[in-house]
Amino acid sequence: MPTIKDVAEKAGVTVTTVSRVLNNRGYISELTRKKVKLAMEELNYQPNEIARSLSRKRSMMLGMIIPTIAHPFFSEMANAIENYAFSFGYKLLICNSRLEQTKEKEYIDMLKSNRVDGVIMGSHTLEIEEYFNLKKPIITFDRKIADIPYVSSDNYQGGRLAAELLIKKGCTSIAHICGDLSLDLLSNKRTEGFIDTLRRHHIEPVILQLETDSFDRSSYSSIFNSLFDNYTKFDGIFASSDIVAMNIIKYASARNISIPKDLKLIGYDDIAFAELSNPALTTIKQPIEEMSKLAVELLDKQINGEIVANEHTLPVTLIERAST
Amino acid sequence: MPTIKDVAEKAGVTVTTVSRVLNNRGYISELTRKKVKLAMEELNYQPNEIARSLSRKRSMMLGMIIPTIAHPFFSEMANAIENYAFSFGYKLLICNSRLEQTKEKEYIDMLKSNRVDGVIMGSHTLEIEEYFNLKKPIITFDRKIADIPYVSSDNYQGGRLAAELLIKKGCTSIAHICGDLSLDLLSNKRTEGFIDTLRRHHIEPVILQLETDSFDRSSYSSIFNSLFDNYTKFDGIFASSDIVAMNIIKYASARNISIPKDLKLIGYDDIAFAELSNPALTTIKQPIEEMSKLAVELLDKQINGEIVANEHTLPVTLIERAST
Repeated sequence: MPTIKDVAEKAGVTVTTVSRVLNNRGYISELTRKKVKLAMEELNYQPNEIARSLSRKRSMMLGMIIPTIAHPFFSEMANAIENYAFSFGYKLLICNSRLEQTKEKEYIDMLKSNRVDGVIMGSHTLEIEEYFNLKKPIITFDRKIADIPYVSSDNYQGGRLAAELLIKKGCTSIAHICGDLSLDLLSNKRTEGFIDTLRRHHIEPVILQLETDSFDRSSYSSIFNSLFDNYTKFDGIFASSDIVAMNIIKYASARNISIPKDLKLIGYDDIAFAELSNPALTTIKQPIEEMSKLAVELLDKQINGEIVANEHTLPVTLIERAST
Repeated sequence: MPTIKDVAEKAGVTVTTVSRVLNNRGYISELTRKKVKLAMEELNYQPNEIARSLSRKRSMMLGMIIPTIAHPFFSEMANAIENYAFSFGYKLLICNSRLEQTKEKEYIDMLKSNRVDGVIMGSHTLEIEEYFNLKKPIITFDRKIADIPYVSSDNYQGGRLAAELLIKKGCTSIAHICGDLSLDLLSNKRTEGFIDTLRRHHIEPVILQLETDSFDRSSYSSIFNSLFDNYTKFDGIFASSDIVAMNIIKYASARNISIPKDLKLIGYDDIAFAELSNPALTTIKQPIEEMSKLAVELLDKQINGEIVANEHTLPVTLIERAST
């Protein structure tokens, strides 16, 4: 493998000059720059990024800590983030916390010692102090931690839109299935917006909290059974994720409850599968592309020493499909 | 942030000794080792992994090049690979090629200069030479490139199982929807196994090739329309991915073709959504966990200088659900 010395010899310049060209430092004439670049090409020289990052104090890597990349919301977001990060010259390290405090902590330690340039944080099991210990630029999703900048969609508005649609469709007996409301997450505002709006129309929804938001229907079985066994008269349900909504379609179908005839159903996120579900799912679309782009931009600005605003809330959209 | 010098002072040893402890090199007494470790703990010293990787010639990072992490097969695989990689101490860089040659090439160059320790290759747009240029341990998925070790599931067997089930269910007019058969992919053996088995039963299937395997139904519309308009008599379809099969459910449903009554449908992969689809999808399960574990193990062995076998084919399983 050719070294920086080989490049210097071939170009007839000093090693320091090659290093300056590589790092864009100091004055270099255009002619010298061209000679060095040509020598690098001819030798197929690959600058050692690790060594360069040491001198630049940059690794050009971002870490993304999420519960699991197997969840379609996070995999679609990671896809968009990787794409924007790539356009900024960053590579993306994926860290699945599996919502285990120990793994999330271990990853934060690893990111610290591995010198990523910044962290995108979409996992939420640890206390605030652990994040501050990172001592590097952070962007969080859907969580407000002191003055760490966050990107979020307008969760309250999403809840309001869902409530208004169910009311418009004539629903009067309404349930809402959401995550653990005791967690300090901005996504809980979906529930707030939903309840507030229904109450203004004198409807009191039944609220059911799930521990996890997963594909594993067995983990929901007691809650879903109680929903369909004890309250068979529901004519509207708002689920706080598309996956949970798709689980409800299966439960309803097994009980011969017809969607949308007997029951109107709204999901949240607008993952790609929402359209493929049968019936196609009405949902509140989070602007995944825009949120991802903004997250990368805000992180890059912080890495470059700029100060950015803390709160970044993007609008959501109601996507009406066959389930309502 | 404490430095290696601070640790040395606190432990009352030289910097060289601390460095030896960090890198497990040279003779160090147990007592000295303990003193150094204690000093590191007390100072909350984070060794600079970048600097260490320079001396060890290891970055403890793996690169994974795939078409897109937004596709559930790859996101489930990345999830499993990240988990096994973590247990080996590796972090995972995610690289979406989007099946564009230029982006795949750019990523390979980046991985070269960034010194990942090894690459897991699940994208297939480039010519063989580009992979060899990487000059580092590689594992491929579903593609046989000279003597680069690969991990694959038994695609031929998967096609055979699908054909046998459709025959057992009494199907006589059968279609198969697959990817581009001109690409040199082991997954094309699904089609081979399917056709061979049907022919032994004197059934000649109609074969339709798709350009992409995506969520975007509009990209399939002409092929699906021709399928349902020109050959309405099909009673069995084998799709070479679950996503394509879920698209077929939507098309069939829009045409009031009842699955499984009028049409038996089999997918491939067994992504988490296969069970959630409505009706739940019969499919050929690829052992994603086992394939991922094996890929990480084989890569780690190569990184440690071991020679590994080239061909690693794992068995598939038929998962019967409501769509047949």
